[in-house]
Amino acid sequence: MRFYDCRTAPSPRRVRIFLAEKGLELDTVQVDLGSGEQFSDEFKSINPDCVVPVLQLDDGQCISEVVAICSYIEALHPVPALLGETPGAKAAALMWNAKVEQQGLSAMADAFRNSAKGLKDKALTGLDAYPQIPELAVRGRQRVDRFMARMDERLADSKYLAGDFFSIADISAMVFVDFAAWLKIPLPSDAENLKRWYNDVSKRPSAAA
Amino acid sequence: MRFYDCRTAPSPRRVRIFLAEKGLELDTVQVDLGSGEQFSDEFKSINPDCVVPVLQLDDGQCISEVVAICSYIEALHPVPALLGETPGAKAAALMWNAKVEQQGLSAMADAFRNSAKGLKDKALTGLDAYPQIPELAVRGRQRVDRFMARMDERLADSKYLAGDFFSIADISAMVFVDFAAWLKIPLPSDAENLKRWYNDVSKRPSAAA
Repeated sequence: MRFYDCRTAPSPRRVRIFLAEKGLELDTVQVDLGSGEQFSDEFKSINPDCVVPVLQLDDGQCISEVVAICSYIEALHPVPALLGETPGAKAAALMWNAKVEQQGLSAMADAFRNSAKGLKDKALTGLDAYPQIPELAVRGRQRVDRFMARMDERLADSKYLAGDFFSIADISAMVFVDFAAWLKIPLPSDAENLKRWYNDVSKRPSAAA
Repeated sequence: MRFYDCRTAPSPRRVRIFLAEKGLELDTVQVDLGSGEQFSDEFKSINPDCVVPVLQLDDGQCISEVVAICSYIEALHPVPALLGETPGAKAAALMWNAKVEQQGLSAMADAFRNSAKGLKDKALTGLDAYPQIPELAVRGRQRVDRFMARMDERLADSKYLAGDFFSIADISAMVFVDFAAWLKIPLPSDAENLKRWYNDVSKRPSAAA
């Protein structure tokens, strides 16, 4: 099994934290996104969408998309369960992970990619050129704020996003919060529940991954 | 178990097809999105994001997000497996489902919601008002075309999206293609593999759901 990673990008960090929680170390290849290595013919044969992370299996199967990679790792290494133990817990973990992706991480990508100077015709990942849309950067920041408030509401009732267990949804959300901080979007000052949760999850050894 | 549906919307149709493939009929509530029933206090208590589909369990747990609902149904009714049987097949089904969501369905939502006259300050689902961004409608249509070409490439090598088995990814993609047709975006004339696949999947009795 080989893991295609990039130390500086948020999506592969989700997998790195997932692996650290499981106590796993994989054969890892760093893909240099800064120099455009993801667009090389070699990498395109691994993921035609030209994004990391990718998990390549020994039989050649290449798995991209964080949720798919994590489900594969969980099937082989079920303990600790990060995708839930019961059908209801599994559904809650997948549900909250999807909400973090759609309402949090994709809003952040909009904010970042539509404003970064180095990404002029690269408003979306992949090979195709899409010009930046400045309104989308503004909307992205608004949505990041809104989703932090949404998480704060949820965490008033629940220790972790999916319930009383740490899950893939918390990993995705921690990466979201850290990337927001990097974009200088802080946690809302009145978001007490979100702060309590963030202090808790970011103390885990896996957070350093 | 109760299923919150809307007959005219693409996302809940994905769950309807999934249920039809399993031969299941659930107690179903139609939510009238046209009149804004999703914004009622009653529905907000079921899904604060104000979108269908939602599966409400007998213990009160409310599951939103298609992939989470389908994983719950699959756990209770594993045959036929629509989320894959082996770890590798499961990962392929989740991976392709995620690609259809991010590259197909979300591009379509951009195209539709940023141009429809009735959705002036409703460029995104949910309670918040976001003005339409016309460039996003244009970009959405370009991305829909690109993703159809991407599916055509994949289906040159594979009977179904995730491999040799019909899966949740094919359900999502069929709903994507049908919604594109409704927006008058046809299958590319030279996409022979995509057409072969579409003719195949749309003949299944579940496609009528």
